[in-house]
Amino acid sequence: MADKYDVVIIGAGPVGLMLSTCLARWGYRIKHIDNRPEPTPTGRADGIQPRSLDLLRNMGLKRKIMAHEPAKVYEVAFWDPNSKGIHRTGTWASCPKFIDARYPFTTLLHQGLIERVFIEDIEKHNVQIQRPWTITGFKNDGKDPTYPVHVSLAHVDGHTSETVRAKYLFSGEGARSFVRDQLGVKIHHKDPIAHVWGVMDGVVRTDFPDIKMKCTIHSDAGSIMVIPREDNMVRLYIQIASSTDKDWDPRKTATAEDVQQHAKEILKPYSISWDRVEWYSVYPIGQGIAERYTLDERVFMGGDACHTHSPKAGQGMNTAFLDAVNLAWKIHHVESGFSPRSILSTYESERKKVAQNLLDFDNRYAKLFSARIPSAGEVAGASSDTEVEENEFVKTFKASCEFTSGYGVAYNPNTINWGPEHPAQHPLFLGFEKGTNLRTGRILTPATVTRVVDANVVHLEQEIPLNGSYRIYLFAGDLSKTSSAVKDLASYMGAPSSFFSTFAHQDKKTDRYHEFNNPHTDFLSFCTVVNSPRAKVFIREQLPEIFARYRDHVYADDVWDQRVPDATAAAHAKMGFDQDRGGVVVVRPDAYVGCVVRLEEGKGTCEALNKYFSVLTGKKLGDERAAL
Amino acid sequence: MADKYDVVIIGAGPVGLMLSTCLARWGYRIKHIDNRPEPTPTGRADGIQPRSLDLLRNMGLKRKIMAHEPAKVYEVAFWDPNSKGIHRTGTWASCPKFIDARYPFTTLLHQGLIERVFIEDIEKHNVQIQRPWTITGFKNDGKDPTYPVHVSLAHVDGHTSETVRAKYLFSGEGARSFVRDQLGVKIHHKDPIAHVWGVMDGVVRTDFPDIKMKCTIHSDAGSIMVIPREDNMVRLYIQIASSTDKDWDPRKTATAEDVQQHAKEILKPYSISWDRVEWYSVYPIGQGIAERYTLDERVFMGGDACHTHSPKAGQGMNTAFLDAVNLAWKIHHVESGFSPRSILSTYESERKKVAQNLLDFDNRYAKLFSARIPSAGEVAGASSDTEVEENEFVKTFKASCEFTSGYGVAYNPNTINWGPEHPAQHPLFLGFEKGTNLRTGRILTPATVTRVVDANVVHLEQEIPLNGSYRIYLFAGDLSKTSSAVKDLASYMGAPSSFFSTFAHQDKKTDRYHEFNNPHTDFLSFCTVVNSPRAKVFIREQLPEIFARYRDHVYADDVWDQRVPDATAAAHAKMGFDQDRGGVVVVRPDAYVGCVVRLEEGKGTCEALNKYFSVLTGKKLGDERAAL
Repeated sequence: MADKYDVVIIGAGPVGLMLSTCLARWGYRIKHIDNRPEPTPTGRADGIQPRSLDLLRNMGLKRKIMAHEPAKVYEVAFWDPNSKGIHRTGTWASCPKFIDARYPFTTLLHQGLIERVFIEDIEKHNVQIQRPWTITGFKNDGKDPTYPVHVSLAHVDGHTSETVRAKYLFSGEGARSFVRDQLGVKIHHKDPIAHVWGVMDGVVRTDFPDIKMKCTIHSDAGSIMVIPREDNMVRLYIQIASSTDKDWDPRKTATAEDVQQHAKEILKPYSISWDRVEWYSVYPIGQGIAERYTLDERVFMGGDACHTHSPKAGQGMNTAFLDAVNLAWKIHHVESGFSPRSILSTYESERKKVAQNLLDFDNRYAKLFSARIPSAGEVAGASSDTEVEENEFVKTFKASCEFTSGYGVAYNPNTINWGPEHPAQHPLFLGFEKGTNLRTGRILTPATVTRVVDANVVHLEQEIPLNGSYRIYLFAGDLSKTSSAVKDLASYMGAPSSFFSTFAHQDKKTDRYHEFNNPHTDFLSFCTVVNSPRAKVFIREQLPEIFARYRDHVYADDVWDQRVPDATAAAHAKMGFDQDRGGVVVVRPDAYVGCVVRLEEGKGTCEALNKYFSVLTGKKLGDERAAL
Repeated sequence: MADKYDVVIIGAGPVGLMLSTCLARWGYRIKHIDNRPEPTPTGRADGIQPRSLDLLRNMGLKRKIMAHEPAKVYEVAFWDPNSKGIHRTGTWASCPKFIDARYPFTTLLHQGLIERVFIEDIEKHNVQIQRPWTITGFKNDGKDPTYPVHVSLAHVDGHTSETVRAKYLFSGEGARSFVRDQLGVKIHHKDPIAHVWGVMDGVVRTDFPDIKMKCTIHSDAGSIMVIPREDNMVRLYIQIASSTDKDWDPRKTATAEDVQQHAKEILKPYSISWDRVEWYSVYPIGQGIAERYTLDERVFMGGDACHTHSPKAGQGMNTAFLDAVNLAWKIHHVESGFSPRSILSTYESERKKVAQNLLDFDNRYAKLFSARIPSAGEVAGASSDTEVEENEFVKTFKASCEFTSGYGVAYNPNTINWGPEHPAQHPLFLGFEKGTNLRTGRILTPATVTRVVDANVVHLEQEIPLNGSYRIYLFAGDLSKTSSAVKDLASYMGAPSSFFSTFAHQDKKTDRYHEFNNPHTDFLSFCTVVNSPRAKVFIREQLPEIFARYRDHVYADDVWDQRVPDATAAAHAKMGFDQDRGGVVVVRPDAYVGCVVRLEEGKGTCEALNKYFSVLTGKKLGDERAAL
């Protein structure tokens, strides 16, 4: 077995580390290499968006990230030229209240610290990043049907090499991907315009009042972006050249002193000086997207290998994380026998669309950023948020908040995300604003509830960890009205051919008394939310045994929520369910809603779920009577 | 200098570690010994109350505690006997909503993990706990006026010893204190009744539904207390003997099996069994309080050396923490020249009163706990919280919530806590319900505000770390109405003899550009809170330079608060200030309110503050004109 792995991962940046972390936790055998001798020492990507914070918390990694005391961006300030130099024309929340986010801010922390948090977790699961090693060749030759991919690896010094076989090969190599080149996958350039950027992290002294805010500053001397960082540092982004320049040269460069001098000009009438510079880099970047993310569903790519764009919106690392999680659970479900291989095709279709949206956004945003905006008169008084006349830049920014926070990611209907065209058809499926406020392909709306067993006030959407399982949320409504429906659902789920029973643990003898999330099966985890005060919920007396077994995942919907102030059962209300009648939500292992089903007496609710999972799993689920 | 220390600390339990952590951070030279070869390996104290969580967060240690995933207790359940065994008669919030707490729960984590968090911090400040060493003698012989206390220490093996001189000696030795014995300080027994307790930590299997809650259970077979812990463990407390028993023997013991058998009887009709036992101990304990905490204000005691009581209310470690913090800042102020030595006398007066209250509470609570309560009929139906007829036990519990959460600690008026009898008299001092909702000797009411420089939404009461400085909060109201008052305050504070200027840093050449909390002086830190939306606050334009210098401590009072839903400036409203006119709050270094002063035009506001600090510092502050 020494040379056989489930997955070989090339590159230990954000996308590779996230994939490795997920799969290592779920028990896969991983070979993970990186061509750098050590993790990122300084600088590089740094922005973690609200949606990524949700994800990191779901993995139990958020606290370790926050221990480094990242800077937090709650607002973005816009500065434009005026007769005295620059003035603030307005500020806007980075993640405005119309977005229902647990963490309505972006954290800024240098990539190396983030990488180390992942590496520590991976090592706990007995995977070591092999450094500095590189990939020298690969082929899906199928000579071993179980491990069809042959991969050649070598130490960067060229003296040592090894070959391994793998079920999957993943390139998280970044923009210059050997794997992508070998596959002959082309980069499509959305926008032919490329830019050269200068980026500088350091500790400054300045009387510029918004130095601890994220700012986009346009002045007659040029444009700059200010981003606060950990350890009292500030990052400045300055555009050094653009392919629209007459003397465009993608290799144009600038010294740190040039950039500092330029920043001083832009920030006038304010002064700025540097105590120290932590990191400085100049790099050309274009907007590109790979035409394919995989050719054979054995060799995959993700992160910067698939999409490059300007650093402005802080999307790189976040998109990489979500690429990896999307692929991780699909590989896991195929390898666990939960899904046919065809589910792997949705990795490219789902993630490429997100990258396309990102490039569209980046395109509009970066163009506006690099354009010099006419000064005063176009925008209203500096001190007014609400009355500011919105220029194109501000408009684009506002419209993009949902996207930049990570909550704008919406996967289209497909086999996983139910929609009216889905192969599973049943009258009890609910659609957006047709019985539910939830939208398939979007994350579950956050809701605060009380866990019954210990009275802890908890975040429902975080209660199932990122364990690779589907998450079934039974919003049970008022049990005095739904007890028959709940009982019926339990008894149809109990049938041997149901989605619930089909993937039950085979080793019945293993003692799972202390297993909270997967006592029956690794295929799914189960939560029940009851419209009742906590002290009136009696799990064993009121719930069928099948639900009562998930005793640590029974919740009372009894916490008031400012967003639905009149609701007695706020979580039910936020999901758009009748507070008495409830409903059932299936959430994908990566936290996006898969389908929503009405809770009714009889076989219907379970039948709809069986149909949905029949499509996902490629198995005929439910007995004849139920599945008819 | 090798044998001279600022403080010698005996014992590395909670009280010693907290004292050591504070003083090590503030730069003192410490000798810290403990007679155990290593920190607590398992068991012992475990409850961290809401107020202690505030304190730990203020020290930057809360995240490290939470990383161990302690159990959280939000509710306490009461079980009483009935014809079938036991039944739940009600539950009650552990820290009910009438208490305005950031963390309305108790965390449970074994003492060793908590100790290690402190030890790691202490070691960062170059203090090593010397183990296993003990104290063999001490004398305040005054032979060296700066280091008057002579202390003899020895390795527990008796082969090595050393003598040192110290400014202060502190005993955190626990109930059996060599120092206390040597001083001849007697323990006063509030209640002559003593008990023998059995305590067992372990992982159990049970169908008892409240096993993850804190429960007090009375049955015909005896009484038990259930407390959830980290790592899926449960702690059980069982009373094994009482001095009221006919056959009372303080050395009576019981095996783990005896206790398990007893628990099985008590929990009927529910079953319980143990997967493993992590820790088991039997110990006798009485309620005692030391008559003195110090004789000479050089040799001090704190924690269990000064007060012992039953473990029921989870108060031991929390009281120890607050003993230590109370002493730490007073020593710091004396040694910094901020206070006359007389302030040290308030350690005993303040902390002994808290211990007396604790014993009064414990006495009532423990008596009720150990009493067998008559069964059904006395209490109402098990399922009803609101309608339960309150028996004496439940009444005591409810009345004690504020006390057990830690927020009931109220220091009486004295030199530090202003009151109508305080030597500083001025018409602008405000009292409870006389111009403010704040009470001196109680903690500052929590409030959420927006930090102006970076738009971060923050907890105002946490913004000044535990740095040993007084915390001055200027609630500036609506600056369009208060700008003269604010300007006047600044100019009187700027006078050389003011409380603000008197303790200014002497080394003016030190570069303090990046110093956020103590740019002018270590005597105080300063916050300004403005009744205005964040984007309309311009620090340099609107605030006098003296306040603007604390640029990272300027806040917009623009966050809505459910407790004062109609307020536009919720923090002002919670403090009981006129939202337009504001007020000034002086908070002690340990977070308790010292005095509250009206904000007015002219010299009055500064004058009142000068008078207050004149008493605290023993210096005549303010010039003749201002101080008249």
